[in-house]
Amino acid sequence: MALLVEKTTSGREYKVKDMSQADFGRLEIELAEVEMPGLMSCRTEFGPSQPFKGARITGSLHMTIQTAVLIETLTALGAEVRWCSCNIFSTQDHAAAAIARDSAAVFAWKGETLQEYWWCTERALEWGPDGGPDLIVDDGGDATLLIHEGVKAEEEFKKTGKVPDPSSTDNAEFQIVLTIIRDGLKSDPKKYTRMKERLVGVSEETTTGVKRLYQMQANGTLLFPAINVNDSVTKSKFDNLYGCRHSLPDGLMRATDVMIAGKVAVVCGYGDVGKGCAAALKQAGARVIVTEIDPICALQALMEGLQVLTLEDVVSEADIFVTTTGNKDIIMVDHMKKMKNNAIVCNIGHFDNEIDMQGLETYPGVKRVTIKPQTDRWVFPETNSGIIVLAEGRLMNLGCATGHPSFVMSCSFTNQVIAQLELWKEKSTGKYKKEVYVLPKHLDEKVAALHLGKLGAKLTKLSKDQADYISVPIEGPYKPPHYRY
Amino acid sequence: MALLVEKTTSGREYKVKDMSQADFGRLEIELAEVEMPGLMSCRTEFGPSQPFKGARITGSLHMTIQTAVLIETLTALGAEVRWCSCNIFSTQDHAAAAIARDSAAVFAWKGETLQEYWWCTERALEWGPDGGPDLIVDDGGDATLLIHEGVKAEEEFKKTGKVPDPSSTDNAEFQIVLTIIRDGLKSDPKKYTRMKERLVGVSEETTTGVKRLYQMQANGTLLFPAINVNDSVTKSKFDNLYGCRHSLPDGLMRATDVMIAGKVAVVCGYGDVGKGCAAALKQAGARVIVTEIDPICALQALMEGLQVLTLEDVVSEADIFVTTTGNKDIIMVDHMKKMKNNAIVCNIGHFDNEIDMQGLETYPGVKRVTIKPQTDRWVFPETNSGIIVLAEGRLMNLGCATGHPSFVMSCSFTNQVIAQLELWKEKSTGKYKKEVYVLPKHLDEKVAALHLGKLGAKLTKLSKDQADYISVPIEGPYKPPHYRY
Amino acid sequence: MALLVEKTTSGREYKVKDMSQADFGRLEIELAEVEMPGLMSCRTEFGPSQPFKGARITGSLHMTIQTAVLIETLTALGAEVRWCSCNIFSTQDHAAAAIARDSAAVFAWKGETLQEYWWCTERALEWGPDGGPDLIVDDGGDATLLIHEGVKAEEEFKKTGKVPDPSSTDNAEFQIVLTIIRDGLKSDPKKYTRMKERLVGVSEETTTGVKRLYQMQANGTLLFPAINVNDSVTKSKFDNLYGCRHSLPDGLMRATDVMIAGKVAVVCGYGDVGKGCAAALKQAGARVIVTEIDPICALQALMEGLQVLTLEDVVSEADIFVTTTGNKDIIMVDHMKKMKNNAIVCNIGHFDNEIDMQGLETYPGVKRVTIKPQTDRWVFPETNSGIIVLAEGRLMNLGCATGHPSFVMSCSFTNQVIAQLELWKEKSTGKYKKEVYVLPKHLDEKVAALHLGKLGAKLTKLSKDQADYISVPIEGPYKPPHYRY
Amino acid sequence: MALLVEKTTSGREYKVKDMSQADFGRLEIELAEVEMPGLMSCRTEFGPSQPFKGARITGSLHMTIQTAVLIETLTALGAEVRWCSCNIFSTQDHAAAAIARDSAAVFAWKGETLQEYWWCTERALEWGPDGGPDLIVDDGGDATLLIHEGVKAEEEFKKTGKVPDPSSTDNAEFQIVLTIIRDGLKSDPKKYTRMKERLVGVSEETTTGVKRLYQMQANGTLLFPAINVNDSVTKSKFDNLYGCRHSLPDGLMRATDVMIAGKVAVVCGYGDVGKGCAAALKQAGARVIVTEIDPICALQALMEGLQVLTLEDVVSEADIFVTTTGNKDIIMVDHMKKMKNNAIVCNIGHFDNEIDMQGLETYPGVKRVTIKPQTDRWVFPETNSGIIVLAEGRLMNLGCATGHPSFVMSCSFTNQVIAQLELWKEKSTGKYKKEVYVLPKHLDEKVAALHLGKLGAKLTKLSKDQADYISVPIEGPYKPPHYRY
Repeated sequence: MALLVEKTTSGREYKVKDMSQADFGRLEIELAEVEMPGLMSCRTEFGPSQPFKGARITGSLHMTIQTAVLIETLTALGAEVRWCSCNIFSTQDHAAAAIARDSAAVFAWKGETLQEYWWCTERALEWGPDGGPDLIVDDGGDATLLIHEGVKAEEEFKKTGKVPDPSSTDNAEFQIVLTIIRDGLKSDPKKYTRMKERLVGVSEETTTGVKRLYQMQANGTLLFPAINVNDSVTKSKFDNLYGCRHSLPDGLMRATDVMIAGKVAVVCGYGDVGKGCAAALKQAGARVIVTEIDPICALQALMEGLQVLTLEDVVSEADIFVTTTGNKDIIMVDHMKKMKNNAIVCNIGHFDNEIDMQGLETYPGVKRVTIKPQTDRWVFPETNSGIIVLAEGRLMNLGCATGHPSFVMSCSFTNQVIAQLELWKEKSTGKYKKEVYVLPKHLDEKVAALHLGKLGAKLTKLSKDQADYISVPIEGPYKPPHYRY
Repeated sequence: MALLVEKTTSGREYKVKDMSQADFGRLEIELAEVEMPGLMSCRTEFGPSQPFKGARITGSLHMTIQTAVLIETLTALGAEVRWCSCNIFSTQDHAAAAIARDSAAVFAWKGETLQEYWWCTERALEWGPDGGPDLIVDDGGDATLLIHEGVKAEEEFKKTGKVPDPSSTDNAEFQIVLTIIRDGLKSDPKKYTRMKERLVGVSEETTTGVKRLYQMQANGTLLFPAINVNDSVTKSKFDNLYGCRHSLPDGLMRATDVMIAGKVAVVCGYGDVGKGCAAALKQAGARVIVTEIDPICALQALMEGLQVLTLEDVVSEADIFVTTTGNKDIIMVDHMKKMKNNAIVCNIGHFDNEIDMQGLETYPGVKRVTIKPQTDRWVFPETNSGIIVLAEGRLMNLGCATGHPSFVMSCSFTNQVIAQLELWKEKSTGKYKKEVYVLPKHLDEKVAALHLGKLGAKLTKLSKDQADYISVPIEGPYKPPHYRY
Repeated sequence: MALLVEKTTSGREYKVKDMSQADFGRLEIELAEVEMPGLMSCRTEFGPSQPFKGARITGSLHMTIQTAVLIETLTALGAEVRWCSCNIFSTQDHAAAAIARDSAAVFAWKGETLQEYWWCTERALEWGPDGGPDLIVDDGGDATLLIHEGVKAEEEFKKTGKVPDPSSTDNAEFQIVLTIIRDGLKSDPKKYTRMKERLVGVSEETTTGVKRLYQMQANGTLLFPAINVNDSVTKSKFDNLYGCRHSLPDGLMRATDVMIAGKVAVVCGYGDVGKGCAAALKQAGARVIVTEIDPICALQALMEGLQVLTLEDVVSEADIFVTTTGNKDIIMVDHMKKMKNNAIVCNIGHFDNEIDMQGLETYPGVKRVTIKPQTDRWVFPETNSGIIVLAEGRLMNLGCATGHPSFVMSCSFTNQVIAQLELWKEKSTGKYKKEVYVLPKHLDEKVAALHLGKLGAKLTKLSKDQADYISVPIEGPYKPPHYRY
Repeated sequence: MALLVEKTTSGREYKVKDMSQADFGRLEIELAEVEMPGLMSCRTEFGPSQPFKGARITGSLHMTIQTAVLIETLTALGAEVRWCSCNIFSTQDHAAAAIARDSAAVFAWKGETLQEYWWCTERALEWGPDGGPDLIVDDGGDATLLIHEGVKAEEEFKKTGKVPDPSSTDNAEFQIVLTIIRDGLKSDPKKYTRMKERLVGVSEETTTGVKRLYQMQANGTLLFPAINVNDSVTKSKFDNLYGCRHSLPDGLMRATDVMIAGKVAVVCGYGDVGKGCAAALKQAGARVIVTEIDPICALQALMEGLQVLTLEDVVSEADIFVTTTGNKDIIMVDHMKKMKNNAIVCNIGHFDNEIDMQGLETYPGVKRVTIKPQTDRWVFPETNSGIIVLAEGRLMNLGCATGHPSFVMSCSFTNQVIAQLELWKEKSTGKYKKEVYVLPKHLDEKVAALHLGKLGAKLTKLSKDQADYISVPIEGPYKPPHYRY
């Protein structure tokens, strides 16, 4: 691979699509700052004390305008930052350019190959001979995965001299991961081990990454502390829900210009993301059908007037299909074959294995017509009828539009900043073990509070008497831990 | 007090308004059964084995048609039951009559005085000389409170000979409680202690009662195990939310016939109940303003397009005020004085202290005009302008309408049945300490599953491969404990 | 028939259910006045000049609290009034009592037989020997029908001596009409002819009555001028739409307490009434299916996310059926047989022939169980499965609840007052021929304007320049006649 | 001006941005065809008989993908077509390229200057020496205006020798029109007169153009028959309402990525367009405030829970401002100065004079920062605070996004095709005078019917008996002319 790291005049490394878009990126970053009161308030509150002085932070998270404001909040607090995207289509090239030019080492562009993607991830983790980052901001867990797999391979190699065998898996992407690690072993058989040793912890952004972390915790394989940012209320009940309510129709419109009103839309999964998607589609005038495995979520869908059926029941009648499950093998090529002509198939879950892209790509005689980048029509030979797949099955809101809007990302990213601050502050205290933590409720409430003024809201204050009556402190937290919002 | 217990021909005790309404009650109970698949399914599943054989159950929970189906589910499973309402206005007299005639000892009527209310509660707990009930179904915690206060007084009396002094409190209702206990001490100084000793546990229905239980657990004063039914997802995220979305407008319409569209409505509190109320009002065409102390809930309201202000900001402009906080002193007489003529003031939280009824009743020169039962116009002398208070500040959906509809109560009450079964089954195993428990998630999911068929829903089944991928059993539970739905 | 007219102490005739409810009626009338700014403003504007001095007005329109405010507006403007209801179930007895005691001759009670209904209509038209009313306020056109049929019979009788033959029709209700006319002919063969001669005109409230008027206009049989109030924008786009959005769920809840969320509801007809009903059901969480004959209305339903199917497609799957068509034979007994157990069948269109009540009542072996007045369960012998029919197929919002709320009726009834004023003012000018008229747009806009202040709205004013630019007067009217709102 | 007409290899004239986008345009046209059943059905029904054989059609209507399908429907029916856009930002360059290459003479590109815009309009009208087009498809009326102004000038010139004086107006755009006409007079003083003589008629697309036509009809200056397509129900109640409900948020998102939820949005005007915009914003979670001059529309807004205030009341609190009035001078620079930093100001009405762009551009010291094309931030010197203006005040849905989606445009454009067919068929019969007509209701219903199948709808059929009962033909039309839908 002929990918070359470039350097700014100040010597900072980067690899982006087009540095000339940096001015445009800067203008949009400035607009976003006005919409991200939580992050800006972190700069005001923590900037003067430079709490991240000396901290190296690696981020693997969609390199968008909103992420740019996050990165510059981290640097404003004293951190040194290297960044890659966590999805091959999610980078906004003008954002990447502005950050690369002004603030941090960025390795990301829209439309990476998988090879390029993992090359970027490696670069973001590469801080020089004395180990990797102190902290990781992860989204989906790929940076964390690479380190864990790296350490595992290095230990095996040390013990047995064996190197990973990419052909041992038929997951094309995991083959690349193993190849990277295998090739690295030759030149430096302790790279990931050093990284692990230096690492203070990771804060993880999304449901999928969190699931991986809890699995590692359960297996006892987690190598460093992790803060589950996703399950802050101000993250999962806002970003996942209201973010998708905004960005799903945005992605559909930009990719296809299709009228949503009057259409039959199937939303696979009715978690927070599915709830946001279903709400958006219903409000836009679609008739929405939900598929679910969980009877509780199914009953919630019913209470909102949505029909709950299986994909098989409706596959040949619906116009729009959205996967939101976090699971795999949701819409298979056999489903796709039965769909109406020009049915739209897309995914807004973290990984692209919700839609059987491999089955589609290898279907005998199938024809792919690229309408425009991230919008493909796939025509089946039997019927000469086509379906429209968005963003090659990857996150359609980031692939076909610009992801979630700034305001809701400010909630999520303020949690990220707080989590990173917490990990860094406690790096030597032993407060955090090799386990998964959520932020305490008072910080969650603080994140929310930082976002009220922008929307003109005024909170009511408890009297002492009232606070006592419901047994909470006047200044919060106001709810028991099990409260669901 | 001249209240006399009556007896059916079979010798079962009761006190209801009008036994001639039993046939009407029976007809509505039969309709409700069709809408309560969870309860009916419990009868089918557990009826044959009579698991409650020998169990005495006391219930203190709104004596409605839906509760009638709950009671007859308990008796169908072998229990003997005594029942009172947990609100002076919430009894449906035809439901009480049908149950009193056919199934259980009932002491409840619509429009009890507070004296009568506590007399009924005592009756429901009175199972004869060998102690009280084995199990309690509580809603708001009044039966639990009476036992706890009784035991406390009996212990004090045993130690010091002192009896409770009703004049030690200026809460009129608590004075009645203390009077009852004081008077009982004379005839039987061990009544509540015997009750406590016999009691296997309580299952508590609502947020307010649960709050009390956790306070007692924290203080170490809880006398028996408690299951928090309220925080089953299939309770708090359904009954509280969708139940109120249904019954708030129902209560408003039956009480006042007022057009909701075009009006400005203030919802105090944006928890599950407040969310349901706000949704109903917004959908009916009102402009909704929310008051909140919790920044997270406030931000949720904003994301739904609702304005968040303080009561003071809007008190003189709004047309409808609803309290849903579970706290006290929300709408004070000083607020009420500033309201528009014929502004409607009502409460849908458990207790009547959200609205300052005492302040209103004792306001100098105020005039009360009863439009019809549970609908009063209070006229202030200064302005000759009036406000309309529903159900004397008590639960307006039960006072002015018929409470939540059967289907959603089937979810709640199926949790109750399961909780009671669990307590009874484990009565000798020591599984439950004197603490507060929630039901395990698989039972929560089961409750939901029992309600899907009635609504024509079809669940998707996980493959083994998919279940492994997300690390859940194929048959559930599907979510981690912290999941918020 | 032993119906006897009673008299107040002042000598005014009446026949109501229970005069002791007059005080309750008065209290509710006073509440309604606050919600009916249009009518109250008519009293302020026109009261002093007593424009109806000397006018006799007969009304045939649901004798509700709202109508009471209309009647007392007419009397406040100088009119003498006689009134009957236009539906056997729609009278609110306390409203009738208050008006009978205080303001006008009322002949109406909830639950009239059809015989009684037409007796009441006759009484309302009977102003003594010198003819009938000067003006009619009609709703559905029954008063107008009786006069037209009476005149037709009197002309035939005069020419040929033949009297109407009730057995010539198998419409049970029309048999009653013919009987009344036949019997009247004997005592006074010119009664209706004298009425016609005196009559200045009628103002008609609803779609169904207006349809009849246009048919008579088309046939050349219309005997006096008519103002079509229904098609004022401030009537049909408010009362029909927003009124039903309010009163449909109100009727469902009061009659059945059924949970609407999660249910499948079929709305037959998607005109203004159907739109209001469908919106209410959708917002309450039902899945709504529309049946339509008109492709334009069908396409509107689709754009709102509603499914459009035929009744046959869904008859066995739906839970709630509402007819809103203004047509007949919409839900036949053969449909009802196929419905789910306890499916709810109701009508909110003007006449009761949308639902095949005759087919149901005469179905062999069918069993009727009255749950409570206006709520019947009909059990089919083959399946032992029942359906629930509301208000015996008549207007369910008036039969099972209290009809539309005051505010929206204030819009409708202000149009009525204006129409009556217009007819009376122009009684001798020849402005109105024997044709059907709608009110001019500036009056329609005035009605709206009278209702804005109550809701806190502030209108924007056009500048002269802007008014010229869009070619309208600064003070309106603002839209061309074909504008659809 | 150095604009040069180009020619395809077949000799057809065009001027577009980039002919290499034709393939991309073709792909999107093919997708759109599937979404435009009304137009495709016209091809099937009328294509074989080639009714437009010999007809020259000039179109002045946004040159989008949807319009491409309209154009190719006209050519499929035998017409020869020349086209320009009716807005400087609304052209989709790939659509223009595909049509220019394959089907018709196109003169349009995104981002024309006003000079270029009118040059394109002239080109579209220029059919060679024997006069102009036979038919015009107009949107906003600019083609019609040019001919009317041209004829007026030619008549004056003939009479008095005077030529138009551009300096007689200070409307910059009208100066250009007069200049074109003046310059044309020199070379050909009868050009527009010949056009007028040849012209059979115009079908006009939008409210603004229709308003102009009715003004000309009222003044007696209309030179040829006009069909008002806008007021077909299947146009104004669909395209204007549901089209804007779709494309307003689309434009906002593409231009600014702003989160709509939680924001305060002001919609100026609550006609069909305003209703669509307000619905979209409310559903996306904004709090919507409406400004209105018309009390009826204001009352409709209130019934939907929207606040109705004046712009002055809210100018400093709102986040998003949308003009939809069809009037001028709605948001003035003095308003803009008072807005919050980064408030978004945009227009979705036909003309750009709703927003005082001239006032803004000439405001002393104002600074314009172009974020990206059609998204400008204007910074006021006093406050250093900026507002964001979309599409330079022109139609933001077409300037910043892709306009209305295909399905709803299929309704509008099927009306256009039918109107054009009607004008052409009756060209010699005298059926249409120099007046403005709307299409008969049965054609309106037909347009709707053509769009039902695509959405899976099934219509109910009237029985003969039912049709007679409501006095309509079984096959429709089903409603009286005044019906408002």
